[in-house]
Amino acid sequence: MNGNTFGRLFQVTTFGESHGEAMGCTVSGCPAGLELSEEDIQGDLDRRKPGQSMITTSRGEPDAVSIKSGVQDGYTTGTPIGMVIQNKDAQSGKYEPFITAPRPSHGDFTYSAKFGTRNWGGGGRSSARETVNWVAAGAIAKKVLSSQGVEIKAHVNRIGDVEAEGVSFEGMVEHSEENAVRCGDPEVAREMQELIERYQEEGDSIGGSIEFEIRGAPRGLGAPRFDSLPARLGQAMMSVPATTAFEFGLGKEASEYAGSERNEDWEFSEEGDPVPVGNDHGGIQGGISTGEPITGEVTLHAPTSIPKEQTTVDWETGEEKTVQVIGRHDPVLPPRGVPVVEAMCALTVVDFMLLAGRINPDRMDGRPGEYDTDYHPSSPDNR
Amino acid sequence: MNGNTFGRLFQVTTFGESHGEAMGCTVSGCPAGLELSEEDIQGDLDRRKPGQSMITTSRGEPDAVSIKSGVQDGYTTGTPIGMVIQNKDAQSGKYEPFITAPRPSHGDFTYSAKFGTRNWGGGGRSSARETVNWVAAGAIAKKVLSSQGVEIKAHVNRIGDVEAEGVSFEGMVEHSEENAVRCGDPEVAREMQELIERYQEEGDSIGGSIEFEIRGAPRGLGAPRFDSLPARLGQAMMSVPATTAFEFGLGKEASEYAGSERNEDWEFSEEGDPVPVGNDHGGIQGGISTGEPITGEVTLHAPTSIPKEQTTVDWETGEEKTVQVIGRHDPVLPPRGVPVVEAMCALTVVDFMLLAGRINPDRMDGRPGEYDTDYHPSSPDNR
Amino acid sequence: MNGNTFGRLFQVTTFGESHGEAMGCTVSGCPAGLELSEEDIQGDLDRRKPGQSMITTSRGEPDAVSIKSGVQDGYTTGTPIGMVIQNKDAQSGKYEPFITAPRPSHGDFTYSAKFGTRNWGGGGRSSARETVNWVAAGAIAKKVLSSQGVEIKAHVNRIGDVEAEGVSFEGMVEHSEENAVRCGDPEVAREMQELIERYQEEGDSIGGSIEFEIRGAPRGLGAPRFDSLPARLGQAMMSVPATTAFEFGLGKEASEYAGSERNEDWEFSEEGDPVPVGNDHGGIQGGISTGEPITGEVTLHAPTSIPKEQTTVDWETGEEKTVQVIGRHDPVLPPRGVPVVEAMCALTVVDFMLLAGRINPDRMDGRPGEYDTDYHPSSPDNR
Amino acid sequence: MNGNTFGRLFQVTTFGESHGEAMGCTVSGCPAGLELSEEDIQGDLDRRKPGQSMITTSRGEPDAVSIKSGVQDGYTTGTPIGMVIQNKDAQSGKYEPFITAPRPSHGDFTYSAKFGTRNWGGGGRSSARETVNWVAAGAIAKKVLSSQGVEIKAHVNRIGDVEAEGVSFEGMVEHSEENAVRCGDPEVAREMQELIERYQEEGDSIGGSIEFEIRGAPRGLGAPRFDSLPARLGQAMMSVPATTAFEFGLGKEASEYAGSERNEDWEFSEEGDPVPVGNDHGGIQGGISTGEPITGEVTLHAPTSIPKEQTTVDWETGEEKTVQVIGRHDPVLPPRGVPVVEAMCALTVVDFMLLAGRINPDRMDGRPGEYDTDYHPSSPDNR
Repeated sequence: MNGNTFGRLFQVTTFGESHGEAMGCTVSGCPAGLELSEEDIQGDLDRRKPGQSMITTSRGEPDAVSIKSGVQDGYTTGTPIGMVIQNKDAQSGKYEPFITAPRPSHGDFTYSAKFGTRNWGGGGRSSARETVNWVAAGAIAKKVLSSQGVEIKAHVNRIGDVEAEGVSFEGMVEHSEENAVRCGDPEVAREMQELIERYQEEGDSIGGSIEFEIRGAPRGLGAPRFDSLPARLGQAMMSVPATTAFEFGLGKEASEYAGSERNEDWEFSEEGDPVPVGNDHGGIQGGISTGEPITGEVTLHAPTSIPKEQTTVDWETGEEKTVQVIGRHDPVLPPRGVPVVEAMCALTVVDFMLLAGRINPDRMDGRPGEYDTDYHPSSPDNR
Repeated sequence: MNGNTFGRLFQVTTFGESHGEAMGCTVSGCPAGLELSEEDIQGDLDRRKPGQSMITTSRGEPDAVSIKSGVQDGYTTGTPIGMVIQNKDAQSGKYEPFITAPRPSHGDFTYSAKFGTRNWGGGGRSSARETVNWVAAGAIAKKVLSSQGVEIKAHVNRIGDVEAEGVSFEGMVEHSEENAVRCGDPEVAREMQELIERYQEEGDSIGGSIEFEIRGAPRGLGAPRFDSLPARLGQAMMSVPATTAFEFGLGKEASEYAGSERNEDWEFSEEGDPVPVGNDHGGIQGGISTGEPITGEVTLHAPTSIPKEQTTVDWETGEEKTVQVIGRHDPVLPPRGVPVVEAMCALTVVDFMLLAGRINPDRMDGRPGEYDTDYHPSSPDNR
Repeated sequence: MNGNTFGRLFQVTTFGESHGEAMGCTVSGCPAGLELSEEDIQGDLDRRKPGQSMITTSRGEPDAVSIKSGVQDGYTTGTPIGMVIQNKDAQSGKYEPFITAPRPSHGDFTYSAKFGTRNWGGGGRSSARETVNWVAAGAIAKKVLSSQGVEIKAHVNRIGDVEAEGVSFEGMVEHSEENAVRCGDPEVAREMQELIERYQEEGDSIGGSIEFEIRGAPRGLGAPRFDSLPARLGQAMMSVPATTAFEFGLGKEASEYAGSERNEDWEFSEEGDPVPVGNDHGGIQGGISTGEPITGEVTLHAPTSIPKEQTTVDWETGEEKTVQVIGRHDPVLPPRGVPVVEAMCALTVVDFMLLAGRINPDRMDGRPGEYDTDYHPSSPDNR
Repeated sequence: MNGNTFGRLFQVTTFGESHGEAMGCTVSGCPAGLELSEEDIQGDLDRRKPGQSMITTSRGEPDAVSIKSGVQDGYTTGTPIGMVIQNKDAQSGKYEPFITAPRPSHGDFTYSAKFGTRNWGGGGRSSARETVNWVAAGAIAKKVLSSQGVEIKAHVNRIGDVEAEGVSFEGMVEHSEENAVRCGDPEVAREMQELIERYQEEGDSIGGSIEFEIRGAPRGLGAPRFDSLPARLGQAMMSVPATTAFEFGLGKEASEYAGSERNEDWEFSEEGDPVPVGNDHGGIQGGISTGEPITGEVTLHAPTSIPKEQTTVDWETGEEKTVQVIGRHDPVLPPRGVPVVEAMCALTVVDFMLLAGRINPDRMDGRPGEYDTDYHPSSPDNR
């Protein structure tokens, strides 16, 4: 309702503003028996964190997560996991010109329109800093999924007009973390990096996109019609800051395909299992997963914070004025967006798996023998 | 949760299968005082209904809606509006080859995977026939919105590689209902029609896309982060059957825009109101409406039901077999999809307006003087 | 949100007013494979229906339910079950004095305060006629539960100051449907009947209460804290029209018990299963079911529609006036409330069982061999 | 869904276990412009906190709240308010006998049944320590309500068989905080105190109940049928730990009232406003508020933690054993439950007021002139 909670059974509720004291989130509905420590989460936070390369903002945030609840003796208890991440390096001074004037194409104006107030420090709640919470929650979701054989990977497949095509899941896994752009094709990554630096030098920024792939998700996920897999992935991805397009399977190209081209026959696999011939359907038919890899793409527009001169209005003086958004900003969003997209994939899929009763606790590391069937009263025969 | 309900305050809950007895929906949360009759709804149902032209299925459904509740003496009462639409022309016989074999690229296989059952008649609940409910509910949402100065229009902007560019809102309104394709550019509409007929003759089908525009929506709609306007529009549009992409504003093209190109200055309008210069942002900044027209696009893949020969598996015999999907099917989806997309726009926006307290009952036709302040106990001073 | 939907995974959405064309509801989330026909539902509708005895209203409603969707060849499909029940015997004329004047202690005044309109025919949506939908949906929930070994029974345990104490589950089952009062103690039932007739003769009405018991519910149901079993039963029961109190276990008497009296030791059953000694806890500890019978009680105030003279205000004339609520009304609510309370128990418990993954489809009659593992793709190993 | 979130528009999500590092909650949906500091919250936390008198547990928790977000320059921003309360005085050692054995009548057994794990330290998430979060969130809700003229007060009206009858709202306000029992009748408070001490000396505990009254709530709150005011108050109150009964208005006594006794005429007030004669209806008719004070009562059973000897089962040894729950426990719950009940009243009512559009921001202290209409874009004419 208020935009601060995502998910139905695996729910994340977040708080925090760019220049507030802390970010934080509560993960409600994580099954008991998952081995979990702060280290499991820190890895993804580090992939998202500012200051990791020349093409990211230099804001100095360690983004160290502290788990406050929901874990006992190293294992989740099934009760809510509270997490807090301190903000350490807010420099609100740089935002002073914007106390009474909205930054162009930011959320400044619209947040004021909605809330009737102005939280100018770093954009307040409208800042993409919020996604630190998503990545923290997503890391837990990923770990649950991994125990069930589901793996998720994303990479940057386009910056401006430079595109990486045909990168496989394995390619993403192997190469995307080797370069600052987070592209699964090392060659193309270099081109992207050069392009980004060119825009950066000009005091400008550039758009791009992220491809994701989800492997091992079982068949039958998704509750048509309004809670179908594409519907909930759509909600998840369109939540990612700066996103202007979401596609799955052939995506936008599907408009140019004939039915006979796009349709995929069913055949029996060697094991006698019915499988579709090909995956132009991106792992989803009729809004429900087919068991094939779920593939999609997210387009992010260029960062709106640019040093170039722009014009805006001053609410107080009633006059237009020229501004420069100085701060410490990213020239491009997809590289740091990769773990964010992965997190939203994970949160979406783990939620559907819980709804489908497809999380098998025996596959989690658990604490076998200790809290198990001997005394566990929920035996299959209702007692 | 189960995919049969859309919306938070303005909620639609639907039922019905392609070859069941009836389709139906309940609209819960429609404000009291809206003048409403079945005629208000029938217009949009007729735009969606089968058999309206040579390029739509010939299934003969009058799609006459019957309102069962929620309206008294011609005005809504604020209590749920129950609607039923009888199915008249189901011909299940044509689906018999598919009782034990999934149609390629349909929802047949995945629905069976999810529910563990097989509803083969016309695809059961997976059929796009369900959207008759959405259009009925959307017509009510549109009428509420219209009373508040919000208007919604969509048209077909692409079929295969034929594209209509730069069609204005006025162009859509004026021309899109004149031609069977529902394209706002009459010239391009002819080309599209020819293209469709070519595919139809070959026993094939083709994809396309729909553009929409929402005029007059107030500033401040959308609850960031996970219930932002793009997030909920994303859920709404990705629910539309056969949709593989959703975009707003520049959409996918945004990846190629520099920040300095896409960013839009703020200036004062002649009335002294701050306005953005341009609408590359598609009416949404920071996930919240700016007051500019909300623009977006939805891509629909080609219909999967084609007479061409395809291969599938038979669960019973355990063998592969050649099939043709004969039935009565559309060679292209966007023309009948236009009222569906409009309906989902309307349902999304009316919900956000209720959440924002932006539905002004005095703007509805109401029944002035009769149920009004004289006796209305909810006076502003709490009594 | 709008009060027309109950449940999370097993969801009921209702529509209809007392004097509208029809009542109806959509059950979303019922598992596939349940044998279901209208006869399964009609039994409970007949127990609730008006005109069944001298101590119920004489309104002549057959309350025949028609299933519109969600059932194929006699078995549920997992998709929403739409149901419609026609209103046949509305006599709005009798309500004419109340078009501009609220009936005392009815929902007339408050519905107008909320909706800003006046639906005077039989109370419109505020009428207890709405519960016909609950009973229809509850009958389906009961059938699902019954397949899982869960049985629900309620009876009238108090009318005015006449009380039936210590009636066992078996007693309720055996006797409560034998008498018009629906009390499990035939002796006390006679006293109750006499008391009711006395009030009826005086043009008056009287309050009472209903006891329920749920047998066979598994351990572990309930999601503390705000979705605990008592919290959701509380919501369910306080929804029942005219309810002013909800209790479980010792209920209100618990205030007079010492901890040492109310506490129950744990011991091992003969089968080595830990069981609490006694059931003063009413089947719930810490908000979660213990596996013992879940017991509770609901108090319903006297019907507000009475022929005795009362005073009210006329909004139009601005004057007070004397009125008599003539219509056809019940002198007491619990006898017809019994199936309503059972329905709300069933809807609450089936929802928690789905959430807990405790509905075993193999225990439903299903259609064995036909839609089964041979081709079912959701095998435990994720494919 | 998971029990950790309450409310629809004014939402609280909580985390924390009795012996975890910290408790915390996120309040999402609080309107912008409320003056708010930690002191506004601390007052109610101190009323709930342990160690405040001889008849409460001696656990030494300062319960100091820290606001992490959602407040800027002393005013709420409309974005989520994150709060954290450190746990300081957990002494898990005392719980060691219960690692493998459930305490009688506690949530130990059922939490293990639900989650398949055992969080033994102080009861983990099942502990009433969780209510510290409710009181923190409730204090914010109360402050919003207070700005709108709505005031809430509760007191202890029964301990064992000692009852305080006929205490007025003013009496509660004036006297209930003067005595350790929190009873609005000082005379009766002394009797209650003596009774409690008697049980305490015997190593036992005793039950009791809390009465609440909500003044100034506007007419028209509540969304019948399943989200009616009693339904949501019922959910709220049955969430309070140890609650076994919830009543409003006449409550359980209603069963003995004739319709003619309980019904209340409508008349015109001196100001010409229709008002009911009396308040046996407890401020609610047809599930919706009448504008009269909303009155209700909650029964809490005796604390289950008692030093007296009890028997339980040991899962590990498979044997029964004698135990004493030593720890530091309350001999009676209502005194500390008063602020908890008030908090749940406040959370319920503020939520309904937001849903009804009845929170007037101009009545909040706001920051007048600064973030106001001059630049606020959401003018009534949609721009």
